[in-house]
Amino acid sequence: MKWSQTRVTETLGIEYPIIQAGMAGGATTPELVAAVSNAGGLGTLGAGYMTPDQIRVAIREIRTLTSRPFAVNLLLTDPVTVDQQQIARIQEKLNPIRRELGLPEWTAQTAPTQFAESFDAQVAVLLEELVPVLSFTFGMLSDEWVAACKERRIHLMGTATNVREALLLEQSGIDSIVGQGSEAGGHRGTFTGEWRDSLIGTMALIPQLVDAVQIPVIAAGGIMDGRGVAAARMLGAAAVQLGTAFLTCNESGAHPQYQQALLDSTEQQTTLIRAFSGKPARGLTNRFHEHLDPDAELLPPYPIQNALTRDIRQAAARQNRTEFLSMWAGQGTRLSRQGSAGELIQQIVEQVEHLYL
Amino acid sequence: MKWSQTRVTETLGIEYPIIQAGMAGGATTPELVAAVSNAGGLGTLGAGYMTPDQIRVAIREIRTLTSRPFAVNLLLTDPVTVDQQQIARIQEKLNPIRRELGLPEWTAQTAPTQFAESFDAQVAVLLEELVPVLSFTFGMLSDEWVAACKERRIHLMGTATNVREALLLEQSGIDSIVGQGSEAGGHRGTFTGEWRDSLIGTMALIPQLVDAVQIPVIAAGGIMDGRGVAAARMLGAAAVQLGTAFLTCNESGAHPQYQQALLDSTEQQTTLIRAFSGKPARGLTNRFHEHLDPDAELLPPYPIQNALTRDIRQAAARQNRTEFLSMWAGQGTRLSRQGSAGELIQQIVEQVEHLYL
Repeated sequence: MKWSQTRVTETLGIEYPIIQAGMAGGATTPELVAAVSNAGGLGTLGAGYMTPDQIRVAIREIRTLTSRPFAVNLLLTDPVTVDQQQIARIQEKLNPIRRELGLPEWTAQTAPTQFAESFDAQVAVLLEELVPVLSFTFGMLSDEWVAACKERRIHLMGTATNVREALLLEQSGIDSIVGQGSEAGGHRGTFTGEWRDSLIGTMALIPQLVDAVQIPVIAAGGIMDGRGVAAARMLGAAAVQLGTAFLTCNESGAHPQYQQALLDSTEQQTTLIRAFSGKPARGLTNRFHEHLDPDAELLPPYPIQNALTRDIRQAAARQNRTEFLSMWAGQGTRLSRQGSAGELIQQIVEQVEHLYL
Repeated sequence: MKWSQTRVTETLGIEYPIIQAGMAGGATTPELVAAVSNAGGLGTLGAGYMTPDQIRVAIREIRTLTSRPFAVNLLLTDPVTVDQQQIARIQEKLNPIRRELGLPEWTAQTAPTQFAESFDAQVAVLLEELVPVLSFTFGMLSDEWVAACKERRIHLMGTATNVREALLLEQSGIDSIVGQGSEAGGHRGTFTGEWRDSLIGTMALIPQLVDAVQIPVIAAGGIMDGRGVAAARMLGAAAVQLGTAFLTCNESGAHPQYQQALLDSTEQQTTLIRAFSGKPARGLTNRFHEHLDPDAELLPPYPIQNALTRDIRQAAARQNRTEFLSMWAGQGTRLSRQGSAGELIQQIVEQVEHLYL
């Protein structure tokens, strides 16, 4: 069988088993999503932090740019208890940064009361727009959402960081599983137990997931080029998901200085950071991380901390202050390259085909 | 080119690019080393903790069992400052365990004054016995040892956990580099900077090492079967090194209960443990680890802590008390299987050849 013919390419109707990860925060522009899909992969809109209206607009824009399948990624949110003292304590740590950025200081009273978009309202848009694929992270879809998506033939793709999560996701009735190795950039998808106990490297994780479940496994974490794609296929993955590799593409919405930081970074410069969102995410270390790291155990949980730091991240982006920007990155950063997303996919395909000779 | 013909198989004169890791502590019996080499791989005697005489006896025994090439692995030791107060404090934590095991308690006065075997004396034996391969971990060989080994055509194989270490090792004039991914069981080989900054997953590490150095890179970390071997070859590795996979082989000297623990364990049960030796090593968590973990920052450095815990580990083995045994393991433990080392290699070879069809 050809390396590019897998259960995932067949089910999704795509040419190559290469998925661009749905990174929340603005990197996955409609142009990037469409460019990946037009090149034969599966582009993904990282819609986790978008309002339902923004998601609808983006989906429609993607559809003006491609007629091929694409995915939308959403982030599940657990119900959280709001602890005003905890929030006040962290605002004390955040306000000096706000002063430095010329932002108004916040108090517990001026802090947001809504911390994340309504997941139900976000999914409702995907159902109405009949997106081909819904990928999701941080947990499992309710039975009702699974049934509603199946009725509309929307392919469901969950995220697992260990075998137990993969089994739970399979039992929930979804179609495929992204196995997220410890190398992966961005948020850890762990939704059972301690995140520290689910930092399994891709090389070890994928075969163990493949042995455990019947539905296709998609490998994520540390894959940056054709070598990684070919390796993941050998491990039994039916497809791969790349995030960091697409951040430095021409169509990426990642901040130019963030892109430059990726191109300049080494494999040793990422770490797991909770300071930006309350959940651990792999990214390039910077001053914001160092400033809050000593208090990591005191941070409000996701999505509260994420909402508290939004004004800072947005101002940092406007002011080109990478020291306060979240710069998610996987461990393969030395392999970051510039170019179009279509060129990246074409290079990967050529490299894999050469390796398979 | 066939998957099994690489610069490593060619240089070493072995049939398959499969190396059994040189695990110190008794698992790598002469029978295991010889079985791996006889099956076409490269067996390695884990001689790090052995006296020069023990090493000589083992090498000669290996040679009665195989005429094929094999390796001996040694552990470099940095000069350490002995802090008697630090030792006394840790002895207070260790003595309750000694009581439980019926061992005499130790004081700072009765503790050992020699903490590791003389590296120079160990290498001298390898030179006299003209072992085919010297592999080493925790640093770089001196120019003198490199020259002496080269003169005797002993292949030198160092261990790197990041690109910087690989470049340093290449510059030192050695022949090949084991790239140790974060999945790997046993001691982290990191010898530059903080060990926490060098936990790079195999999928990300190997291509970055391959791009950085000219000498062959051997992939280690999370590889347990033919899928991992094929994947590592796709990443550009000229060979693979497997440790955990050989621990449950018939010829392994690992304690039977440790072997059973490996067979029963999941991918989530390993962690990086400093309690046994002072250096972080990936292994199955147990009571000893939990007992000393709160004081991890207070532990004497390697090899002092290693010497302090030796009587406990030995008594635990005699008494079948796995709660006090060091049970190193990589993150691929669900893939552990029983059988002979020759069968394991044959299975790997068949699996890789099937995958390469």
